[in-house]
Formats: sequence, C-alpha cells, structure tokens
Amino acid sequence: MPNLSKNRQDPALTSLGQAIRRVRLDKGISQERLALLAELDRSYVGRVERGDNNVALLTLIKLAGALGMHASDLLSEANL
Amino acid sequence: MPNLSKNRQDPALTSLGQAIRRVRLDKGISQERLALLAELDRSYVGRVERGDNNVALLTLIKLAGALGMHASDLLSEANL
Repeated sequence: MPNLSKNRQDPALTSLGQAIRRVRLDKGISQERLALLAELDRSYVGRVERGDNNVALLTLIKLAGALGMHASDLLSEANL
Repeated sequence: MPNLSKNRQDPALTSLGQAIRRVRLDKGISQERLALLAELDRSYVGRVERGDNNVALLTLIKLAGALGMHASDLLSEANL
C-alpha cells in the first residue's frame, strides 16, 4: 500500500532518517539489530530512515537510546 | 473525556512539557500566543505542557521554533 501521509519525506523527517542511518552505519549496526534494540518493528525503522514517518518523541528516545545517544544529540546530528 | 492514552504523563513527556512551559514563561509568552505562533490549537499546547501527549517530531519542531529554539535545544533543556 503506498504511503499517502502528508508528512511523507518532509525535509526534517528526511534529515532525521539520514542521521539515524549515518549513526547506525558508523556503529556497524544493522537495521534489524537497531529495531531489536529499540523494540520496534524493522519495517517501521526502515520507514523512519526513509523519512516516511513523523516519529513521536517516545519512539525517538527509543531509537536514540538504541544508538547510545540522547534524543537531543540525535536531533542535533540531524541539524534539527 | 478523560485521556486514556497509555503514554499519558510518561516521565519523558512530563519533562518535555515542563521545559516548554519554563522556556515559554521565561520569554513571557502566554500559552495562547505560543499556540498561535506554532499554528497549533491552544488546548493541544496545554496537553503537551502537562505531559499528556506523545508529541510528533514535526510538532516538536513547530513548538521549538515558536520559542526561538532548535528542537535539539528544547530536548536538551528537558534533559532528553
């Protein structure tokens, strides 16, 4: 099913997704492993990395924690 | 209608809400004015300040912008 969300690939969401992917790859963590660590679905993590999801704060905190960062640092990495 | 959200008053949401309120009062901005600047409903801003809403990233960015901050700085102010 196509993603018809009005927020799809908003520049801020794309920037966050790229930052998550960059940090994840720097740490040598697979998308599957990140999903496991953050207790999220892998397909959901994929959507976030593509900028297709207007991620909620508690999810952002889980993703940042799984990457060993504070959520504020993850947003800073994304220039947000 | 009571808020039955499972995320209601999660410590992280409470911390964000307190930080928004603190910065807002420091700047002498009313809740109504903040809502107007962020193009959000005033009652929604009230819920966020009470920690009753798992705010999405694009909304967080709007709120931070209305307070003259980056979203990363707002999360940092909330120790998140």
